[in-house]
Amino acid sequence: MIITLTTDFGLSDPFVGIMKGVILGITPNAQLVDISHDIPSYNVAEAVFVVESMYRYFPEGTVHIVVVDPGVGSPRRPLAAAAHGHLFVGPDNGVLSAVLLDEAYHIQNDRLWLKSVSHTFHGRDIFAPVAAHLARGTSIDTVGPRIQDFVRKPLPTPRRQGRKILGTVLRVDRFGNVITNLRRSDLSSPFTIIIGGLRIDRLCANFSEADPGELVAVEGSTGYIEIVMNRESAAERLSVPSGAEIEVESDSAKH
Amino acid sequence: MIITLTTDFGLSDPFVGIMKGVILGITPNAQLVDISHDIPSYNVAEAVFVVESMYRYFPEGTVHIVVVDPGVGSPRRPLAAAAHGHLFVGPDNGVLSAVLLDEAYHIQNDRLWLKSVSHTFHGRDIFAPVAAHLARGTSIDTVGPRIQDFVRKPLPTPRRQGRKILGTVLRVDRFGNVITNLRRSDLSSPFTIIIGGLRIDRLCANFSEADPGELVAVEGSTGYIEIVMNRESAAERLSVPSGAEIEVESDSAKH
Amino acid sequence: MIITLTTDFGLSDPFVGIMKGVILGITPNAQLVDISHDIPSYNVAEAVFVVESMYRYFPEGTVHIVVVDPGVGSPRRPLAAAAHGHLFVGPDNGVLSAVLLDEAYHIQNDRLWLKSVSHTFHGRDIFAPVAAHLARGTSIDTVGPRIQDFVRKPLPTPRRQGRKILGTVLRVDRFGNVITNLRRSDLSSPFTIIIGGLRIDRLCANFSEADPGELVAVEGSTGYIEIVMNRESAAERLSVPSGAEIEVESDSAKH
Repeated sequence: MIITLTTDFGLSDPFVGIMKGVILGITPNAQLVDISHDIPSYNVAEAVFVVESMYRYFPEGTVHIVVVDPGVGSPRRPLAAAAHGHLFVGPDNGVLSAVLLDEAYHIQNDRLWLKSVSHTFHGRDIFAPVAAHLARGTSIDTVGPRIQDFVRKPLPTPRRQGRKILGTVLRVDRFGNVITNLRRSDLSSPFTIIIGGLRIDRLCANFSEADPGELVAVEGSTGYIEIVMNRESAAERLSVPSGAEIEVESDSAKH
Repeated sequence: MIITLTTDFGLSDPFVGIMKGVILGITPNAQLVDISHDIPSYNVAEAVFVVESMYRYFPEGTVHIVVVDPGVGSPRRPLAAAAHGHLFVGPDNGVLSAVLLDEAYHIQNDRLWLKSVSHTFHGRDIFAPVAAHLARGTSIDTVGPRIQDFVRKPLPTPRRQGRKILGTVLRVDRFGNVITNLRRSDLSSPFTIIIGGLRIDRLCANFSEADPGELVAVEGSTGYIEIVMNRESAAERLSVPSGAEIEVESDSAKH
Repeated sequence: MIITLTTDFGLSDPFVGIMKGVILGITPNAQLVDISHDIPSYNVAEAVFVVESMYRYFPEGTVHIVVVDPGVGSPRRPLAAAAHGHLFVGPDNGVLSAVLLDEAYHIQNDRLWLKSVSHTFHGRDIFAPVAAHLARGTSIDTVGPRIQDFVRKPLPTPRRQGRKILGTVLRVDRFGNVITNLRRSDLSSPFTIIIGGLRIDRLCANFSEADPGELVAVEGSTGYIEIVMNRESAAERLSVPSGAEIEVESDSAKH
């Protein structure tokens, strides 16, 4: 059984290693896979994007732990959810929005927790042991009552405004590629993307097709349109953070 | 069998991966868990804190490799130790202080090492293979003679000075929480903690109870008192590094 | 079976975790070992050095994935190679130069790939699944035709110029040790290494033998000569990047 971990804990502190110790105490043969521990602190939206990007590449039955949890210790609820054949655990703050469909449970069964639960590290005390029990085959409906009123913070979708489409930057990756929430179908040719004051009107198949220094659009590996350069950082050139606005003009009459 | 790794090697160089290759050559089914490889270079005290924080969350029988080793290649001894049902290997420079009780061995049995031992990477040549052999069931007393005169550099404990308690910052975590060596019992109400020139007199159960911009104390997940803010970095506000002094006034007569 | 991963993907984005999901969908019991994901973006030479440093410490039969791939989606070929009892997959851009001997194959068999192949993430769509199949025992000659004309970018070797030897900095490690392409045999005593305008004429067995503030040479754990200091960063003192030139004067007549 596979258990993935996505957090904002970083890798300098022992937090992630401790969660793995707790898991292995319950299910010694788990395959543990780190997705990212560099979600910006408390940034629920980036966690939603990361979860959406990754879970489908794992086999069905995988348990995904997602802990970006500024409200730890407050009354916010711990959740377990099932969707698309995968299982997920995390706080009820929207972090599971990409996969919270209708099967969600409020984790209340403290026999699945560590004996002593802190007020500041539920990743260790609740989420890790519950995930380990789920990976061992404990049925999800034993964690607590099913609920409907969970928090959802879905990724923003592009909206049409007159002849324009307004989109958003979802994330900037390590290479400086600017991942937007646009899809290829939002770019009917000819188009112009306006972002950070600059205009982009070329869709390339890959990075290598861009000329040196040129900003182009590509359909990225997540299915979203990305603004990229060839071996350079588009994000540095554009100076746009995640959440920034993008405008697409694709009315052929505009010229 | 589980083997954990705690080092100051970072993750950019292949050092940690190489150690894992050596381990898996000896014990192919080991569960390898990274604790942290970002211990500040040569910082034995932070390694001691990390080891103390994490080992108890692993099942008994786990082997923990701890390599912060500025004296590599010098006559400092390589050690193996047993404590609380766990096994530990690392250099004799204090790095194992949190767990060095009385059962420590000077690693001398070079049949457990790589055939060729370098002067600069005993993590690869000695500690990794010895840990792998211990994980496979090799008895700890075969590594070499038992010793008593190992180096101990225990974490500083708070000391009383008149009506004050003087403590120390043990570590700053990724969120900017300032972890001190104080315990909850050091804070008899009302109390005032003086740190970085600022005064803190409120103990909260969790981060969310703090008002925006307020510095408060919480009992952290390691059992130590931490100075924290709600979704902000207390360390940035206080500008205190690990090792900094803290003062607690908790005599109710002081007002 | 062991599969190692060396990339320039970093650990903040979910790229590496996604590759592992793909692998585990094909071979659920693989031992996955991260070597480094911090190869400087697009830096083929540093990847060559890392691969050369690490593969020999893994058991024979290990499959190594090496993806530093600025040409992803362009006609550059995906390769699988066998050498020294190990298997390797990566793009045909020189990244496998340390291990590309004569047994290399052009990966063309798309039954071994993910069903849908993107133009920008062959690590996920081609290299991860092919590596997983190789680890399961699929014969390397089923990936595609054997080729001879693969790209090789071997590490630079020192060259003699009159009474001097001219070398190169291969990499600077986390501790600021400056790893050169010189071997111990290049330093016949007495010698002077000239690097960054400074002169070094002492070869020490380990870091501890250097005096405080002194720059010395040691034979590093990879077998290359490194310029180091005792608990300080030689790279910071010397301000030399990878690729910088080094000069060795070792003619005893020079004084």
